[in-house]
Order: sequence, then structure tokens, then C-alpha cells
Amino acid sequence: MYRFLSLARVFGLMLMVFSVTYAFPILASLVYGDGTLSLFIQDMLLTLAAGGLLWLTTRKFRRELKAKDGFLLVVLAWIGMAAFATLPLKSYLEDLSFTDAYFEAMSGLTTSGATVLTGLDDLPPAINLWRHELNWLGGMGIIVLVVAILPVLGVGGRQLFMAETPGPMKESKLTPRITETAKNLWLVYAGLTIACIVSLKLAGMNWLDAICHAFSAVGLGGFSTHDASIGYFDSPQIEGVLTFFMLLAGMNFATHFLAIRSRTFTPYKHDIELAPFLILILASCVGIAFYLWQEHTYPDFWTALRHTTFNLVSLATDCGYAGTDFNQWPLFAPLWMLFLGCITACTGSTGGGIKLMRTLILVKQSQLQMLLLTHPTAVNPLKLGTMVIPSGIILAVLGFIFVYFMSIVILVLLLIISGLDVVSALSAAIACINNMGPGLGEVGPAANYAGLTDFQTWLCTLAMFLGRIEVFTALILFTPAYWRK
Amino acid sequence: MYRFLSLARVFGLMLMVFSVTYAFPILASLVYGDGTLSLFIQDMLLTLAAGGLLWLTTRKFRRELKAKDGFLLVVLAWIGMAAFATLPLKSYLEDLSFTDAYFEAMSGLTTSGATVLTGLDDLPPAINLWRHELNWLGGMGIIVLVVAILPVLGVGGRQLFMAETPGPMKESKLTPRITETAKNLWLVYAGLTIACIVSLKLAGMNWLDAICHAFSAVGLGGFSTHDASIGYFDSPQIEGVLTFFMLLAGMNFATHFLAIRSRTFTPYKHDIELAPFLILILASCVGIAFYLWQEHTYPDFWTALRHTTFNLVSLATDCGYAGTDFNQWPLFAPLWMLFLGCITACTGSTGGGIKLMRTLILVKQSQLQMLLLTHPTAVNPLKLGTMVIPSGIILAVLGFIFVYFMSIVILVLLLIISGLDVVSALSAAIACINNMGPGLGEVGPAANYAGLTDFQTWLCTLAMFLGRIEVFTALILFTPAYWRK
Ligand SMILES: [K+]
Ligand SMILES: [K+]
Repeated sequence: MYRFLSLARVFGLMLMVFSVTYAFPILASLVYGDGTLSLFIQDMLLTLAAGGLLWLTTRKFRRELKAKDGFLLVVLAWIGMAAFATLPLKSYLEDLSFTDAYFEAMSGLTTSGATVLTGLDDLPPAINLWRHELNWLGGMGIIVLVVAILPVLGVGGRQLFMAETPGPMKESKLTPRITETAKNLWLVYAGLTIACIVSLKLAGMNWLDAICHAFSAVGLGGFSTHDASIGYFDSPQIEGVLTFFMLLAGMNFATHFLAIRSRTFTPYKHDIELAPFLILILASCVGIAFYLWQEHTYPDFWTALRHTTFNLVSLATDCGYAGTDFNQWPLFAPLWMLFLGCITACTGSTGGGIKLMRTLILVKQSQLQMLLLTHPTAVNPLKLGTMVIPSGIILAVLGFIFVYFMSIVILVLLLIISGLDVVSALSAAIACINNMGPGLGEVGPAANYAGLTDFQTWLCTLAMFLGRIEVFTALILFTPAYWRK
Repeated sequence: MYRFLSLARVFGLMLMVFSVTYAFPILASLVYGDGTLSLFIQDMLLTLAAGGLLWLTTRKFRRELKAKDGFLLVVLAWIGMAAFATLPLKSYLEDLSFTDAYFEAMSGLTTSGATVLTGLDDLPPAINLWRHELNWLGGMGIIVLVVAILPVLGVGGRQLFMAETPGPMKESKLTPRITETAKNLWLVYAGLTIACIVSLKLAGMNWLDAICHAFSAVGLGGFSTHDASIGYFDSPQIEGVLTFFMLLAGMNFATHFLAIRSRTFTPYKHDIELAPFLILILASCVGIAFYLWQEHTYPDFWTALRHTTFNLVSLATDCGYAGTDFNQWPLFAPLWMLFLGCITACTGSTGGGIKLMRTLILVKQSQLQMLLLTHPTAVNPLKLGTMVIPSGIILAVLGFIFVYFMSIVILVLLLIISGLDVVSALSAAIACINNMGPGLGEVGPAANYAGLTDFQTWLCTLAMFLGRIEVFTALILFTPAYWRK
């Protein structure tokens, strides 16, 4: 009981901090006079009051958080914050059901960027800014999660992924050193965001669009202020800028930080995910562009390459902007892009999926098995760069990947039972669990998630949530072992 | 070079033995006077001559086969035998392309039972018997493969699966003890076949149908003498008999043998796959029957249960008979049945897929990972029954499963690129790599594989071949390490 109350205290604090983030839309409603001022102030106070009340009633229950508490805290925080994030949506869009509002808020905070709203172009600037800020805050949350919490929890071999974090998992405290790391990464995150805002303005966006899209690009959220997403602008410059920043956001933020601190490119050379990340994306862009050109989707190779590059980088990094209706492309192209979305984003990025590090371990382990068949007496440890990966970690990684893909299978089957067609169900499950955004078919870039039934919407909400906290973090709460002393 | 010539010698011997199997259709053409006698005699002599010639020219190259040679021999044998098995098909059906004939032969020998032929009901008895005999011989071949060859090769943790075979893989000889085991299993196989023939005759089939369907039931091949497969008979008795024998054939033949030798049921109790196998199938039957009844596919639960049981057992064991056009059922039901086909068949059965043993290891390993997250210091080895599974084997099993499912993904993508719709492509890839037979959509039970292009047909042929030899056995030949001294 004490444990729950001390977690409630932390959540109360988080809510109070969260209420501060209303300052952005409040400022926007002042600047644009869009009539949402009182609404945002009211929601801000409500959130502050709820957080304050929770904190006041539980403030005596101070306790160092243990690793085990982390699982519950992460689950609570994401579910609870999303509930409060619905407030402005519900108060402005009175017809919006709670199901849809919660989907939209969860989509924002998990940086999925799937939307149930149509008529984005006509929303008040402050409401659009709020949606995009959720993407941005979600990205920040993920960085904390990835840097500070998951490695300590040891989810899916995570302890391997960050040199900054403690080694093998033990009942370790969330140390100040980790807080320091998170702060440094946030600085990089904020710096990238500002650079992106300026670049987008220079590429031709107005300030509101530039800020909103920078928020959703650097967080790899993929929300847009336009129903047609980036297709609205039809601008190679804007697509170029966004592609550049999506690629940066799909890399490890720790690498960016180390590069900035050392003022050299060396950290990029040492990042074992970086070369495979760029090669995989580049090869896919050229291959798919060639394919679309051969299939006469585009009249020449260069047009095909332009559209392929933007949309493929968008899906592979799990950002989820649509530059064009890729649902109209021959099916292989978007399927390949969805597949890339499962495996491509780097560790320590704001992207989703299983992460490239785990993909590399999986591939290397398979190669090793093949070698063992012909040379059974060979003793070859699995190496990434110069690092030897112990078999405990490999097992954790493979177990993680299995649970991840089984989750997709179950989600697809449930969506099909509920009446969705195969392509829509498959793409919705993949797009949601990878926090990617748009799928194909009924949930494709030309449509959105508004057409789903309530049951389907909740399934997709669950998928986004599970994907973001790396599945295991939630599943563990359903094991008896977790609740044993 | 010496190595190839000594393998050629073995293949020559195999061909000569294979030519003996023409005795069955020759006998049938004598009994039924269907005019195929000269044709089968000619093909028999051709096969015998080819095998004899090969053996004569290479007979000096005698050498003990090493484990490493096994990979090449298995690949050669299956590809080569399928080529010779096309002879009667090509000589009777003159319009049949080599692509289609090879597909049909490979489908027979891999016990897939997918067909490109329409008008099965009107084929001469001897030709139909030949097709079904391929199913039956394929089943025998698999038993040797599984008992004698794969464990020695160590493919995907196979060394674990058979108590009879040597422990950790080394450059061991194919010992006489293994030959002895294979003979014992063949006795069980032959005994089951005879029991099945008699039961089918009693259930109302004529002798030809009873023999043909016993061949394809015990081998889990799934060929039928009727275009409508088992739906042709519309008989609960026949469905009941076949369900019973498909279940027996989906279990480990070694367990059957031990039970017969000891004249007790104890070996069944000790078989760790058996209980999960029966529970998974039973639960799925009840669940799907309930679902079909709720969806008004059938007017009452018991009709739904009858059709579900036969078709589900048929797909879950990878036999592939169709009792009705399950392609018309709500999509979830056949998708679940396809999924079962990937994971349900037991080790040492004639079924396909990853085998239930590997499924169990995968599930237990995932549970263990979850436990490790909350109790990081716990030392829990993975146990199946009382057997502790070493982590090397777990890694081999997980690597195997990964490569298996990646093969499915690649096949699906290639089939989609080649113009097949998603449901047909997905189900064709799964049905072929699991040696199951019918899929859904264009390759569903009411249609067959005749509608595919040549490219698609070859892809499916490849899938059946890869699935049967457990993927790795073929992939290994493409690694430089295999060809190094
Ligand atoms: K996204
Ligand atoms: K079959």
C-alpha cells in the first residue's frame, strides 16, 4: 500500500509539471486570438489542482523508487497523462467521444501521430499547437524512459544499449547521474527543435506550421496541421528539411550529445547502429524508387525518388508524415516501408519498433547459428563492433522480439475479428505498435482512424501504448512474480 | 570432387530403390485396366537406368558420409527425386508444363498436397495412386530426415529432439543404430497406414479411395482423388476416421513405437508435446466452432463443431484436406487455422511448421525473461518436463524460428510483387512452407494452385522444399563456411 501511495505522490508531481506545459497553447491563443484562452486556462488549473491534491494527500509517503516500481510508474504515467491530455480536446470539440479524445491524446504522447480528427486545417492554432506539443513532450518522455528507466528495468536486453547506464540490472536507485544524462539529451532535443523551426520557416512555412511540424518531426510524432499532411505544401524544400531532421531524430540522441560535447564527428563513427541505419534507408529509397518508376507510378526516376525518399524516411523512422497517398502505390512499396518501420529506428531515438540494435543482434545471431552448423566446435561469441554480447542478453533480445511480433499477430487477428479487412488490420496494428501513425487501406494516409469502431479504436490505443513502453513493461504487471514480495 | 562423386553414388542407389516404388501404380493399372501400364513400365525402367548408370560410373567412390555431407545429400535427394517423380505425370498429361509437373511432384514428396491439377476425379486410378504414393513416400523420407539426419546436422536445436540420436553434434557417422530406429518407425508408419485403409473402407470408401487417402492421411500429405477433397464424401464417419489418423500422424512416431513395444500408454504420458498438442487443438476446435455458430456460418453449434474439427485438425497437423470451403468462413477462423499449422505438429511427426517442441521452448523462454525482469538474480534454467535445456540449444531454436518466419515474410513480399493479393499471397506462403496444402483466396480449397503464374509456382515449389528440409539445411549451402575445408 505504502508503495502505491508513494507512486501516487510521484504521479501528482508529474501532473503539476505537466500543467506548466499549457503555457504554450495559452501563449498561442493570446497571439492568434483564437478564442481558446479561457478553455486552456481552465484545463491548466484543473490539471494543476488534480496533481496538487494528489501530491498533498500522499506527500508523507516518500521513498526511494526501486527498479521494480519503475514498471508500474511508467504504465501509470502514460495512461494517466493521456487522460489529462484529453481535456483541451474534449472542451473544444464537444462532439468528440472520450474514446476518440483518448486515442488522439495517447497518439500524441506516444509520438504515434495517428489521428481521428478531420478538418485539422480549420482547428484553432492553439488546439493544433497542443496536439503537436504532445508529440514533442512524448519524445522527451521517451528519452527519459530509454535513458533512465528501461535500462535499469532490463527490458529486452536494454541494459546493453546505453553506455551511460548501470550495467547488469539490480535493484538500483534512479541515480542523479541518470538525471544529468537526461538533461543533456534534452538540451540536444531542444537545440534540434529550434534548428528545425528556423529551417522550416526558411523553407516557406509560416511560424505556426514551422513550430508545430518541428515539434512533430524531432519527436518523430508525425502530427500535422493539415489533413493532407506534408502533401499540403507540395514543396521539395520542406520535404528536404523534414527528411533531414527525421533522420537526425531517428539516430541515437546520446551520439548527437557526445558529438556536440567533443565537437568532432568521432562519436558518429563509433555508433554501431549508424552505418546500417543509413545504408538500409538509402538502399531502400533507391530500390523502391526504381520499382515505382518501373511500375509507372511516376513518369521518371527522379520524381519517384523524391516521393519515395520523403515517405520512406517518414515511415522507416516511425515519424509518419504522408507526402503523398502512398496507399495508391503498388502494395509491395508501402509494405516494405511498414516493415522498415518495425526494425530501423535507432536505440535512444524517438522512433518506435524493436530498434536497429536488436535487429542487428538478431541477424548476427542467425549468421552465427549457420556457422555453428558447419563448424560445430567453433567458439564464436556474438560481437557488435568490439563489444561481446553475453548470451543472457541475446536471449533477452530474442525473447523481446518474439513477444513484440506475437503482439502484432494478436492485434491483427482481433482487428480482423472486429470486421476490418486484412490490409487495414495489418497496417493499423504495425503502424500503431511502432508509433508510426498512418497505415494503409481504411487507415491510410488519405483517410484516418476516425472510421474505426470504438472497440477497434481502443485496440489501436492499446497498441500505441504497448509499443511505446516496449510491451514487456506492461506485460510484467500481469505476472504473479511481480506482485510477490 | 571425390565428395561429390561419392554423393552421386548414394543418389544413384536411391534412384534405383525409388524405381521399385513404381510397382504400386503398375499393379493398379493391371487391376483397373486404365491403360497406363506401358507408361509406368517405361518410366520405371527409365528411373532404374538413370540410377544404375549413375551408380555404375561412381561406384568406386565409396566413403563414409560425414555430417557435413548430409546437407548436400538432403538437398540433392529432394530436388532430384522430385524431378524423376514428374515422369508419369508428364507422360500421361501431355499438356502439363514442366513447371506444373515439378510443383505437383515436389508437393507430393514434401507431403504438402497442394495441387495444380483439376479433374482429379477423372484421372486414371494408377495416376492418382502415384500422386498419393508420393505423399506416403515423402512421409517416410521425412521420418528418416528427422530421426537420422537433422539431429546429426544440429539444425535448429534438433539434436535435442530425439532421445535415440547422438548428443551434441559432431562429425559423427550415420550409424547403424539410426538405421535400426528408422526401420522401427517405418513399421509403425506402415501399421498405421494399413489400419487407416481398413477403417476408411469400413467407413464407406471404395478400395482405391481408401488406399489413396490412407497414404495421404498417414503421411499428412493431403492429396485427394477428388477436386472437392473430402467434401466429396460428405460423410461424418469418413471425417471421423481421417481426423483420428491425422491426429495420430501429427504426434511423434517414436512415441507410438515405444508405446507399441512396451504395450503400455506410459510413453504417451512422458511425451512432453502430447498434452499441449491435444489441448491446443481441442480448445481451438471448441473456440472456432463457437465463433462460427455466433457468426451464423452454421445454424447450430454441433454442425459448426463437426466442420471445424475436421478442417481445423487438417490444417493444424498440416495435412491439408478440405472438408468444406473454409475460404467462405469469416476470415479469423481460417487465419487461426493457418497459424496453428505453423506451430502445432509434433517433432517426429510427418507434419510441417516449426514443430510444437520449438513453440514450447519459445513460450517458456519468454516467460523466463519476464520472471528475470522482476527477479533479476534468480537462476532459473529453462526446463521441458524434467529436461534442462542448455542456452546454446535455446539460441539455436530461436534463431531457427526467426529464419523460418523471415522466409515467410520474404515469400509473401515476392508473391505480392508478382501480383497476388495479400490474402492469397500470405496463405500460399504459409500453406507451402508448412507443407500444408490449400491456402485461402486464389489458392483456397475451392480453387488450387493452377491459377498461379510460372514465377509464382516456382516460388511456392521453393517454399515447400525449404519448409520440408527446415530452411537451414538449404541456406547453409550458400555460406562460404560450408565449402571451406
Ligand atoms: K509517429
Ligand atoms: K499437407
